[in-house]
Amino acid sequence: MNTAKFEEMNSIFFPRNAAVIGASPKDNYTYSLLATKIRDRLYFVNPNYGEVLGRKSYASILDIDVPIDYAVIAVPAQFVLGAVGDCIGKGVKGVHIFTSGFGETGLPEGIRLEKKLADLVKGKIRVIGPNCMGSYCPKSGLSFNPASTNVEGNIGVITQSGTFAQVFVYAGRTMNMRISKMVSYGNAVDLDCPDFLEYLADDPDTSVIALYIEGIKDGKRLRAALEYAAGKKPLVALKGGVTGAGVRVASSHTGSLAGAGQTWSTMFKQSGVVQVDDVDDLLNTAKTMSLSAIPSGNGVSIVTYSGGFAVVQSDMCVKAGLQVPQFSQKAIDELRKFVPAAGTMIGNPLDSWQLFYKYSGEGRLSDVLRIVSGEKQIHSIILQFDVIRFMTLMWGQGAEEKLEAIAGDFLAGCRYARDEAGRLVIITISLDPYTDNEMERSLSVFLRKMCEEEGFHVVPSLGEAIRTVAYMYKYAAIKNKS
Amino acid sequence: MNTAKFEEMNSIFFPRNAAVIGASPKDNYTYSLLATKIRDRLYFVNPNYGEVLGRKSYASILDIDVPIDYAVIAVPAQFVLGAVGDCIGKGVKGVHIFTSGFGETGLPEGIRLEKKLADLVKGKIRVIGPNCMGSYCPKSGLSFNPASTNVEGNIGVITQSGTFAQVFVYAGRTMNMRISKMVSYGNAVDLDCPDFLEYLADDPDTSVIALYIEGIKDGKRLRAALEYAAGKKPLVALKGGVTGAGVRVASSHTGSLAGAGQTWSTMFKQSGVVQVDDVDDLLNTAKTMSLSAIPSGNGVSIVTYSGGFAVVQSDMCVKAGLQVPQFSQKAIDELRKFVPAAGTMIGNPLDSWQLFYKYSGEGRLSDVLRIVSGEKQIHSIILQFDVIRFMTLMWGQGAEEKLEAIAGDFLAGCRYARDEAGRLVIITISLDPYTDNEMERSLSVFLRKMCEEEGFHVVPSLGEAIRTVAYMYKYAAIKNKS
Repeated sequence: MNTAKFEEMNSIFFPRNAAVIGASPKDNYTYSLLATKIRDRLYFVNPNYGEVLGRKSYASILDIDVPIDYAVIAVPAQFVLGAVGDCIGKGVKGVHIFTSGFGETGLPEGIRLEKKLADLVKGKIRVIGPNCMGSYCPKSGLSFNPASTNVEGNIGVITQSGTFAQVFVYAGRTMNMRISKMVSYGNAVDLDCPDFLEYLADDPDTSVIALYIEGIKDGKRLRAALEYAAGKKPLVALKGGVTGAGVRVASSHTGSLAGAGQTWSTMFKQSGVVQVDDVDDLLNTAKTMSLSAIPSGNGVSIVTYSGGFAVVQSDMCVKAGLQVPQFSQKAIDELRKFVPAAGTMIGNPLDSWQLFYKYSGEGRLSDVLRIVSGEKQIHSIILQFDVIRFMTLMWGQGAEEKLEAIAGDFLAGCRYARDEAGRLVIITISLDPYTDNEMERSLSVFLRKMCEEEGFHVVPSLGEAIRTVAYMYKYAAIKNKS
Repeated sequence: MNTAKFEEMNSIFFPRNAAVIGASPKDNYTYSLLATKIRDRLYFVNPNYGEVLGRKSYASILDIDVPIDYAVIAVPAQFVLGAVGDCIGKGVKGVHIFTSGFGETGLPEGIRLEKKLADLVKGKIRVIGPNCMGSYCPKSGLSFNPASTNVEGNIGVITQSGTFAQVFVYAGRTMNMRISKMVSYGNAVDLDCPDFLEYLADDPDTSVIALYIEGIKDGKRLRAALEYAAGKKPLVALKGGVTGAGVRVASSHTGSLAGAGQTWSTMFKQSGVVQVDDVDDLLNTAKTMSLSAIPSGNGVSIVTYSGGFAVVQSDMCVKAGLQVPQFSQKAIDELRKFVPAAGTMIGNPLDSWQLFYKYSGEGRLSDVLRIVSGEKQIHSIILQFDVIRFMTLMWGQGAEEKLEAIAGDFLAGCRYARDEAGRLVIITISLDPYTDNEMERSLSVFLRKMCEEEGFHVVPSLGEAIRTVAYMYKYAAIKNKS
């Protein structure tokens, strides 16, 4: 660990005081930072305003009489160099440049401006950006989106795309994604992916790293940083630009030399990084890594209410590199004691819709989960709980109380599977966002919350559950080889 | 066309009168059928009740003094043969047996009972099932789910899984899935997939067929029926059980001989059927086929608000067998006139978040869509409209009016692309079902409705949009070869 470098990065993520240059009553950074604990150490700079949202607005950062460690620059492109110059004069440690209009335009004047910026800052100040969302750190109060939560987590996120940074912020609200630090670093005129990887690798608050990357200036340095970080904690990466068209678009997006997809895949694998193919997979895998031990093999059991899904999902598992091994005769005999024979399938997957409605008595879902956890060929369990709409039909207003009893029972089984038997458990609760059934919606939200509070990751579809298990197994396989 | 057979099937789907045997105040068939136009020609049979929901309940179907063409049998397994015998005596044309506990149990007594049932009905009455949901036909009023809509459509659905039949029913509510006729046929003791394929192929109300199948007794007959149906209208199929584990599970689910995945894929391809891999794809492809012409090539353009998504989705397109060709210089020059250079990408994909917020003036999304439609290497267009959450933040209560103006504009562009330029257009509007932002939710519902009313298919994720376009292209390629 490079202590000096770590301290330098830490002073950016935990500034003594922070400023927004270009603050205005219509600016997102102003609102975002006023909503966090940094508000008491926050200063606004904008010569066009005497005050912004009731606070003094300084004409220049040089006029502020306390030290500023971190400044957000959100002024038009032609004023950026001046603002950065002022920050250097003020002794600011790190600036984040939100402004776009640099190299990413592909236009000569943008490329020229980016070169000038690089020359100006070299050795004098650290820069995140330009053309990016910047930093989010609930522990210090840095934020770029008024919707971000202030809840501190253990997932570190590094993304070359601003949109995906927003996706992670919203996931904090909708899927309980708990973040330690996130950075969207755009054109990377100074600080680049390896700097953030090294920092998060050493950061005691971060236990998992999620990365979205399109390209890099120094491949050798990236490889070393990936190896360093993946050697310390689980690292999951989505590479944008792995096909011909993707590479062309990535080069136009962040001006990156994206390189061949195969080269990147090999580098990830050799560095101990698990590579995913889509943004949802990046979210699901990072969150699952933050909650669960990795599975010790590729055997999956699916506990479902539907024979059709049992068939299709078995196919999906196999296509994803997993296995759906049959249960032992002993387990099947035990299950037969309380799973009705008609209209069910007693085996793996287990299809028994009746058990999902059983809110009291013996022989319930928790028993199934305990029996399945005892099977040594099963390393992960997916519980598909997609019967809420039907519950509203069958039970009406009585549904919530019964659902709570059912969830209490199956969560006991899930805890046993995870904590006693060491199995990876993922729960699916599908909910169509366009449902016309308000009760289905509120019960789904209620159930999901119960599961999340027990530390189980809930996904909205079986496909996502299967892919997440497959990535967790892929990660286990990488770790076992290294 | 076998006219006698068609008339026989038609008399089942359009019965003069219908009965529920085993009707009760707690039974779904009772509720479902009372909610449709068939209610005036509906009779209840159950010796345990004098009346059910205010209607007379007959002790036997033989006591009813009008002809019954269609009966639902929902009695315990041991009473099924008696009920079927009564139906034969009454001259019923077709029965649907909901009851499970037959061959699908894998138990000797279940297999024996199914054999007895087969022997009893042969040549005397037509049977749907047992162990299935039965029929749904909004035009006649047949239904198995109280949540089904009464809106008549043009998509015919045949499914060996009852759950997937329910999924199609809910899709009628949430994604505007418009069905002509649907049948869930379970163990297929009499009527089997080929019977329904032939019927829907000849049915003038059906213009697209969606099929979920696990296995079949007579492969040669199925192949002929697939060829016959696919020769008459688009046919999309999901085969459950294409891997070793899937085949094992399918055989336990419906007792089917599922066969090797490759054999089925070859049969589908040679018959002109497009095969999909997941239930969502079955829904999306069927609906898109019901709305749109097939694309004449595999070139896709994506109009988006995010560079990161533009990169990742270009990769996803290429992996799915599509191309993301660059625009002509002429188109790029035209786009440059109104797409800002900073923080955007002018090319294919087009990433310009600014245009999504432009609710008046010149140079808007409709202009983009017109320019893109003029590119001969582009055959399909995906519009990713995922900025509603940000609109609520930026515009607050004013958002709906502005969104309506924006949608009015881009829908004019979509209509041009579809109706004048013959392009396939798919719109994505993502909405997290667990959003905590009620305004985002209501605006998303509002926008989706506007798009659907113009006949555009809306999907909730970019992945689904890309897969749907890929399947539509696959279908086009199959048709062009045959």
